[in-house]
Amino acid sequence: MIGPEIDRLIQLLAKLPGLGPRSARRVALHLIKRRDSLMLPLGEAVTAAAAGIRTCSVCGNLDSRDPCHICADGTRDGALLCVVEDVGDLWALERTGAYRGRYHVLGGTLSALDGVGPDDLSIPALLDRAARPEVGEVILALNATVGGQTTAHYLSDRLAGCGVRLSRLAHGVPVGGELDYLDDGTLTAALRSRRSL
Amino acid sequence: MIGPEIDRLIQLLAKLPGLGPRSARRVALHLIKRRDSLMLPLGEAVTAAAAGIRTCSVCGNLDSRDPCHICADGTRDGALLCVVEDVGDLWALERTGAYRGRYHVLGGTLSALDGVGPDDLSIPALLDRAARPEVGEVILALNATVGGQTTAHYLSDRLAGCGVRLSRLAHGVPVGGELDYLDDGTLTAALRSRRSL
Repeated sequence: MIGPEIDRLIQLLAKLPGLGPRSARRVALHLIKRRDSLMLPLGEAVTAAAAGIRTCSVCGNLDSRDPCHICADGTRDGALLCVVEDVGDLWALERTGAYRGRYHVLGGTLSALDGVGPDDLSIPALLDRAARPEVGEVILALNATVGGQTTAHYLSDRLAGCGVRLSRLAHGVPVGGELDYLDDGTLTAALRSRRSL
Repeated sequence: MIGPEIDRLIQLLAKLPGLGPRSARRVALHLIKRRDSLMLPLGEAVTAAAAGIRTCSVCGNLDSRDPCHICADGTRDGALLCVVEDVGDLWALERTGAYRGRYHVLGGTLSALDGVGPDDLSIPALLDRAARPEVGEVILALNATVGGQTTAHYLSDRLAGCGVRLSRLAHGVPVGGELDYLDDGTLTAALRSRRSL
């Protein structure tokens, strides 16, 4: 007989990705034992983020302002437009600190099986943005999966007439990776795209 | 450049057991995409539980009322007192539905190394409760770890003079378990405690 508040908390925690009923109970107990240091701040942070976060109407990023911090940042290079599938990919690129251009979040990949067509993704908006005079290069930073590559192929066809340079991320040996553990496809791509020293 | 609300949410999520920075980002994104169905209810549930949950002054259980639902339930058998290390163990026993007595949560195990003595656990309160005339049996349901067994040994010494029957959980083959995968200690215990058919 677990109390209703704790029961509801566990039920909701179990819906988070990577957590099941067992780990949800562990998290709930961990939270209750750290009421002031973790549980109250987390409750506030979740509620505040739920109330404040919106989708940027320009690029599709998630932020507390619209346009988002990146779109509103005048020091960003407007000539570079990086197309990603999801906001998580945008975060990953931002963490590198290696990119100072702007983004466009598609919101998924094309999939005939799941009935996802160009109009279900943010592709019309991308074509509009790419056609603007300030955009010089569109980087298709889609995942190296079937869905990602199909979408990249479709986009490169559609963007071919826009007069922008198109590029994609390089395939190759991951930094820190060992050749022996790499799949054949990656190794073949790394060999083909070898760089002269 | 991730917004401050999302950043704070990720920081706090990463402090949960079993989550690291990467899975915290995944959880945050999952939440933001399910604002109404999951994120707002979770924020409310965390805040409500943080505000409402307290430790039962009788048994040490966590509940929204004090004494807790189990201590306040008159249909529970007051002659049985089950001693557990932690609230998670109490939840595990309650899920079985096989126990209708009362509990006593110690709050940990004795540990000379970590400086945890009898007064740091809820042992004085346990001795008081066990000495009451209605209590007939104390079940030491402590973990089968070094700490749990040390504590069980200490408790059985202290409770020997109380005139209550002492018991512990059976050791043996887990239900559904295969002998080939069991450790030697468990198999030895199962053999020694074999039951005649």
